[in-house]
Amino acid sequence: MSQARVQLHAGGPLSSSAKAALAAFFGERRKVAFLTAASLNNEESYFERVRQALEPAQPQGAGLSLLHLRWDRQPLETLGRAEALFVGGGNTYALLQRLQSSGLLDAVRDKVRAGLPYAGSSAGSNVAGPNILTTNDWNVVGLSRFDALGLVPFNINPHYKEADPAMARFSETRDDRIAEYHAVRANPVLGIEEGSWVEAESGRAEILGLSRAKFFRRGQAPQWLKSGEALPLPPWP
Amino acid sequence: MSQARVQLHAGGPLSSSAKAALAAFFGERRKVAFLTAASLNNEESYFERVRQALEPAQPQGAGLSLLHLRWDRQPLETLGRAEALFVGGGNTYALLQRLQSSGLLDAVRDKVRAGLPYAGSSAGSNVAGPNILTTNDWNVVGLSRFDALGLVPFNINPHYKEADPAMARFSETRDDRIAEYHAVRANPVLGIEEGSWVEAESGRAEILGLSRAKFFRRGQAPQWLKSGEALPLPPWP
Repeated sequence: MSQARVQLHAGGPLSSSAKAALAAFFGERRKVAFLTAASLNNEESYFERVRQALEPAQPQGAGLSLLHLRWDRQPLETLGRAEALFVGGGNTYALLQRLQSSGLLDAVRDKVRAGLPYAGSSAGSNVAGPNILTTNDWNVVGLSRFDALGLVPFNINPHYKEADPAMARFSETRDDRIAEYHAVRANPVLGIEEGSWVEAESGRAEILGLSRAKFFRRGQAPQWLKSGEALPLPPWP
Repeated sequence: MSQARVQLHAGGPLSSSAKAALAAFFGERRKVAFLTAASLNNEESYFERVRQALEPAQPQGAGLSLLHLRWDRQPLETLGRAEALFVGGGNTYALLQRLQSSGLLDAVRDKVRAGLPYAGSSAGSNVAGPNILTTNDWNVVGLSRFDALGLVPFNINPHYKEADPAMARFSETRDDRIAEYHAVRANPVLGIEEGSWVEAESGRAEILGLSRAKFFRRGQAPQWLKSGEALPLPPWP
């Protein structure tokens, strides 16, 4: 069985409970590589912002020591020095393209399967699934291969929000889009609301945090899950 | 110079003013092929719904006679019998994939450049641009080639809506996503609000309808355009 341990957040600034969860998830491992490759803006300033949020001791931060993992500067060396990995948000297609071109896609998958803890946020959560085709992002980089890390057997839709009457009228809702995904593909999709996360280990996944998640299986009614509830899936290898 | 005449709607049920605009755009041409290939649901029921909306005489309908153009049933023959083309909404990636696999992509481009009027709605508007990477849709079919009809030199973002405080917090706004597009690609993007459309002919485009459109050029502040205003672009070939 895979040794993969993952914690996938919807995204947005981490709440104090999410910071505590990250700290608990990493445990004794304090030297965490933070990958900024999803950012199409300034990766350095993104890193600094997250560093300042996570390095202070709890409860202000998570008491971590962050290494900046740059996809374009000796990424495999930096990854080799880290005790855990945290992958940040931005554009999911840009992130996957850079994981592919840098060699990180295979290296990260191998290391996580061998026990390196993997945390993700938003785009960093999307790439943990089998593919990224349920991201909210646009494929502005024109990426043509969508298979991702496959650390969990379900796709992620972060920042999940049910149909909202204030959204653009006649535009598809998230549920419409997930139904379109299931018109073509069969694996489940987990919509994670802001403020929640999913933690997976030993072929089992559980929802945590202050909000909820909605689990979509092809041909079945979607199911809301709240903190402490496990995804209704058979254990995966 | 290309003979292309196009009218691109944001989408949603057509208002009476939009129906009148469609009728005026098609002019003497009443036999209109309606392409339902963007639908991942029931193409027949989609066709029927649109037929019932457009066939009655004005002002209830548009006084058109609709041929159902199916991508998977002799599409080139049906296209050959039509005096004009209307491409409906659904999933933009599914639409482009079916245009590619059926041979319609090249056939439609050639016919429109030779004078066949082209109207589109939502996904049908997206495919009129150089590429479809500013659609709101998800690439649920895993498409890997994104070049589209290129009937106009700008991309479309239909159902455009500015940042809305009721949207999922920390999720990117449309303007954020268009800025990401311009971090990678240079051609302009037109966000079309529900209820508006753009009409292009002879290398010039104009906004029409009851709402607005927002025009995004790389490196420039976006610009709102209302009905009757032309896109600030040099004439294109």
